[in-house]
Amino acid sequence: MALIVQKYGGTSVGNTDRIKNVARRVAEYRSRGDQVVVVVSAMSGVTDGLIKLAKDIAPLPSEREMDMLLATGEQQTIALTAIALHSLDVPAVSLTGAQAGIVTDGVHTKAKIHNITPKKVRELLNQGNVVIVAGFQGETPEGQITTLGRGGSDLTAIALAAALKADLCQIYTDVDGVYTADPRIVKDAKKLEEISYDEMLELASLGAKVMQSRSVEFAKKFAVVFEVRSSLNDNPGTIVKEETKSMEDVMVRGVSLDKNQAKVTLVGVPDKPGVAARIFKALGDATVNVDMIVQNISHGSGVPATDLSFTVDKPDLLKAQKVIDGLKKELGFRDVISTEKIGKLSIVGVGMKSHTGVAGKLFETLANEGVNVDMISTSEIKISVVIDLAKGESAMKAIHAAFIGN
Amino acid sequence: MALIVQKYGGTSVGNTDRIKNVARRVAEYRSRGDQVVVVVSAMSGVTDGLIKLAKDIAPLPSEREMDMLLATGEQQTIALTAIALHSLDVPAVSLTGAQAGIVTDGVHTKAKIHNITPKKVRELLNQGNVVIVAGFQGETPEGQITTLGRGGSDLTAIALAAALKADLCQIYTDVDGVYTADPRIVKDAKKLEEISYDEMLELASLGAKVMQSRSVEFAKKFAVVFEVRSSLNDNPGTIVKEETKSMEDVMVRGVSLDKNQAKVTLVGVPDKPGVAARIFKALGDATVNVDMIVQNISHGSGVPATDLSFTVDKPDLLKAQKVIDGLKKELGFRDVISTEKIGKLSIVGVGMKSHTGVAGKLFETLANEGVNVDMISTSEIKISVVIDLAKGESAMKAIHAAFIGN
Repeated sequence: MALIVQKYGGTSVGNTDRIKNVARRVAEYRSRGDQVVVVVSAMSGVTDGLIKLAKDIAPLPSEREMDMLLATGEQQTIALTAIALHSLDVPAVSLTGAQAGIVTDGVHTKAKIHNITPKKVRELLNQGNVVIVAGFQGETPEGQITTLGRGGSDLTAIALAAALKADLCQIYTDVDGVYTADPRIVKDAKKLEEISYDEMLELASLGAKVMQSRSVEFAKKFAVVFEVRSSLNDNPGTIVKEETKSMEDVMVRGVSLDKNQAKVTLVGVPDKPGVAARIFKALGDATVNVDMIVQNISHGSGVPATDLSFTVDKPDLLKAQKVIDGLKKELGFRDVISTEKIGKLSIVGVGMKSHTGVAGKLFETLANEGVNVDMISTSEIKISVVIDLAKGESAMKAIHAAFIGN
Repeated sequence: MALIVQKYGGTSVGNTDRIKNVARRVAEYRSRGDQVVVVVSAMSGVTDGLIKLAKDIAPLPSEREMDMLLATGEQQTIALTAIALHSLDVPAVSLTGAQAGIVTDGVHTKAKIHNITPKKVRELLNQGNVVIVAGFQGETPEGQITTLGRGGSDLTAIALAAALKADLCQIYTDVDGVYTADPRIVKDAKKLEEISYDEMLELASLGAKVMQSRSVEFAKKFAVVFEVRSSLNDNPGTIVKEETKSMEDVMVRGVSLDKNQAKVTLVGVPDKPGVAARIFKALGDATVNVDMIVQNISHGSGVPATDLSFTVDKPDLLKAQKVIDGLKKELGFRDVISTEKIGKLSIVGVGMKSHTGVAGKLFETLANEGVNVDMISTSEIKISVVIDLAKGESAMKAIHAAFIGN
């Protein structure tokens, strides 16, 4: 008897027929004698609909109240999934994040899981139930409802798998697994049989959209091996696990394009110590995630000044601008320019550690495509460049062809 | 400084504009220096939409899971209302029923409030917040989410008013107050300035739709004087309070028509002791609310047998039929007939205690209209008759004209 945690995303539970499908799949695993914990997201469209309601009322709604609002999406799905399982004569009980013992910190809309006390989950499993847990949400020790931010349901599943010492964790989604590139853009993209946590992590943080980095980090930290697979068929998916020696034979595992970043440039920042610290501390205090940072020497005359650029998630842009505007008097920079029209193109592979010439090949390929590079950032296993959004997809295709082929 | 509990129903919070209206009204009370607790229902249509989703999956969904599902409706409204108040610079915090300390028994979909510990509510009020509480819901001592059944939000408001010893409890709805009859049917219906708990109770239990009887019972028990008024204008509403001497001067306070009942008749029930007890105990165990009961002697030959009729709320009919079917073998009745095509017409007034001839006048008026009476039930302050649904509205108009006039 295995203990399996399965997570189904918003598309997989997007309507009542799909919820019935999920129930059938769960019932099948259970009929083999497995114990199953199901983590579900809100039905696709529900969260966006709720956000729209809130923004109809106020452009910047309180994050505490957004959590109160958005947590209802997953709560609806757990109830409907339990009802679907009952109709297949499978005993099932739904639990909100709080009821499942998921305790978080108090950073609303982006809470971190502090700990999980899965006592209730175990109890219900041992009574023979399928336990359905609302993804994406938890509760502070003081009883405030929190949400875990984008991709939070994956995190719920992986954290539950770790806490329950599950034998298997399956992340069901609307794609067959992790691809060498987004197959909607790159027709030749191939499904990977396996990928290391680190590669997946880079891909995740680079907008490959399959999973958010926090979930992969969590899985790596607690050595939770998980499978990304489709809820629409029975094809095997992609196994995500610790790096093996043979993984290094491949130079580039995947190519990704993140269209969800925005760039902010502070023009004419007086060049004195502590300025960058002041800016990024303030952004951090406002819980704005900054990704890439580039600083150039400014070529104006007079007081020495620099231009400072950084990227943030598009939804954080307004908040970031507000923080920067608040610092204008104090720091005395000349102007702020921001744009959402950028794309971050990245190549990822543990093979980069042992192969040389990767960067050269990348820049050469971009140059041949007439793509200008705006910002560059590298790690041991990835290279990212910020380019014009309009050229993002063609550049991605060229890079995929050059490194991974057809 | 007064402490006011205001309750807004589904129509009053039916879209984001209406939620903003509610926020404006609340802000106005607060600007006078009052402390305000706001209880809200789900936005109109939301609960029905959720029920439809559940029934798409299974015709008889688990009640525990229905509570999990439906509680999300009110949770959405509290968050949106808080956001609307923030946009008017009014500090406001939303609380689910559980967070507000509303503890119930475990009868899902029809839970009773056990007790309220409004510690958190008081704390937030004292910090200067408007506190917005999700109506219709609570939590068992074991942490299960429950709902209070139809009209549960009124109950939440009145119970909170009692627990907080509020100075005023206002039930905002889409009508100006309590009328002598439903003004959509009876054009001459008049708004009442005040009404006694008992009269309101009878009207409520008779389907006058303004409020459910449980809420009025609760208000009577804890002497919570409340006002029923419109959220769409500033007209004074109807005050509901303990009976006063002058109230008895009026013979009939109001006329109501309940179209939400269904009738079940057991034909040929063997006439032996304990049969009725067996039936109604079984219905009670299944939490089916039985309203009127009539037993007639059957005129067949052979074993002495009777016909037994009772009425239940329409949504309970399926459940009632299931219970009755399960008893068929044991009790040996001949047949079961059920119909939803009935209306329960009632007249109510504390004046009946001191006036004679009310029943005679009622039956005479019905006879003149050619309306056949199916079942009769009386109390000290009301007379109800079950009639053909098709004749319900014309009968109601005639009765209103006869007793209350134009």
